[in-house]
Amino acid sequence: MSFPEQLAACASQVQSTLDALLPTVAQSRVAEPMRYAVMNGGKRLRAFLVLESARLYGVEQTAALRVAAAIESIHAYSLVHDDLPCMDDDDLRRGKPTVHIKWDYATAVLVGDALQSFAFEVLAQPETSANADIRCNLVATLAHAAGGCGMVLGQAQDIAAETAARGLTLTEITELQANKTGALIRWSAQAGAMLAGQDTTLMRDYATAIGLAFQIQDDVLDIEGDAAAAGKRLQKDADAGKATFVSLLGLDAAKKRANSLVTEACDVLAPLGERAEPLRQVARFIVARKM
Amino acid sequence: MSFPEQLAACASQVQSTLDALLPTVAQSRVAEPMRYAVMNGGKRLRAFLVLESARLYGVEQTAALRVAAAIESIHAYSLVHDDLPCMDDDDLRRGKPTVHIKWDYATAVLVGDALQSFAFEVLAQPETSANADIRCNLVATLAHAAGGCGMVLGQAQDIAAETAARGLTLTEITELQANKTGALIRWSAQAGAMLAGQDTTLMRDYATAIGLAFQIQDDVLDIEGDAAAAGKRLQKDADAGKATFVSLLGLDAAKKRANSLVTEACDVLAPLGERAEPLRQVARFIVARKM
Repeated sequence: MSFPEQLAACASQVQSTLDALLPTVAQSRVAEPMRYAVMNGGKRLRAFLVLESARLYGVEQTAALRVAAAIESIHAYSLVHDDLPCMDDDDLRRGKPTVHIKWDYATAVLVGDALQSFAFEVLAQPETSANADIRCNLVATLAHAAGGCGMVLGQAQDIAAETAARGLTLTEITELQANKTGALIRWSAQAGAMLAGQDTTLMRDYATAIGLAFQIQDDVLDIEGDAAAAGKRLQKDADAGKATFVSLLGLDAAKKRANSLVTEACDVLAPLGERAEPLRQVARFIVARKM
Repeated sequence: MSFPEQLAACASQVQSTLDALLPTVAQSRVAEPMRYAVMNGGKRLRAFLVLESARLYGVEQTAALRVAAAIESIHAYSLVHDDLPCMDDDDLRRGKPTVHIKWDYATAVLVGDALQSFAFEVLAQPETSANADIRCNLVATLAHAAGGCGMVLGQAQDIAAETAARGLTLTEITELQANKTGALIRWSAQAGAMLAGQDTTLMRDYATAIGLAFQIQDDVLDIEGDAAAAGKRLQKDADAGKATFVSLLGLDAAKKRANSLVTEACDVLAPLGERAEPLRQVARFIVARKM
């Protein structure tokens, strides 16, 4: 199976898992927008990282799929809230109206809130792992990664940067992105090792490198990308005069840096041998992607 | 110690616990609004229910205080989001500017999000209970109570009722409130039994009764209350023409119903004897309170 086929197969499995786990329309009037927000396609990169790291560490796939569903729910909640008028004010997400456009502002706030709760409910349930210490570790680490010292902090830093008197330095933007997008990517890659009760250092180092590469590529795509393919507005950061990796490093140096991070990520995986090839492919995909 | 003194002592202990557990301003730029939102006084009824049920079931207070801090964080997050312009649009909460007034809209969304994550992080950490199965049970049940089939559903039902063609029936408003405010109150009272690994049926029945009494009294206070004492706008529901327990039952019958629910709640506690007196006092306080 080629890498895009593997990615699509993962996305399809996660979709089925989410479908089985999410509240039904009969159970809740927010079930429909919850499902709309989280089951809208997407690359499912975080889910793929969970499934591949779980496979590498010998964890059965049923458990890994639940964890993948949880991280995609957290990611989806963050997108629903980031798209709100008070934040990025985006009308489109993957070519479809965002939740506050298709429904309304209040529904979008509530759906994000409910998707966050849902993720922790799934992780904490016995079906995720027979070992409750492992489940608690997943909950505590994801809550930390998503919260006020992780993803939410990164978003707050991003918003503050827009009105700051001076542009961010490279160090500051690296820290911001390590929080805003890096925290969930690092957690996803470590989740397989956590499910197996193993040390997560190697996976964390790998994910730190690809997380940064991912964001640099996002900034590259904001300049070079195709809005139709991306299904969202582009050049937003450039238009807003925001400091990005591209504005700070220049386009060529940004691309070089992303590529060297991919090499670094692949090197980190060396001790795992050939079996880690899909994770190397993720790393390469991150800088090769056009959307 | 009188009941108001007990309640104040509990509030003070929960405040110290939150202070010790919340991120510091040095750790996160959202720490200050997080602290503002959750450490703004309040009756701490949910925390009191956690501490008293924990005491009844022989759980050590250090653990119970962490659980109390978690439920107050979830409650605080829900208030921050409910106060947003897209929801109840309230400028004041307990006499102080709401988070979106003191900071801004985006900060209020993010702070609510971070407080939700924080609650699950605290519950899942080993310090909450040596037994990880118990910690997972707390996380899974609170996530369910707070999420799209619990509190968030209740809020969505409440919003939908505002634009519905007809007013809610008594059955519908009872269900709405069992979700919107009842779910967290039920969870709080059950938390002590959960921490002890005991059956929660008795505490659930008790809390179902006081949860409904609480909401009926809220509707009574919306008509009869003192805005200055309450620290928020009153008569909002009446002005909006919303169906409430008072509009459906009439003021006197609503008060009678609240009182009979208190009697019911106290009767449920009979098997626990004198030791459950503080929980009976909570029940009586709920309908006696003026704010």
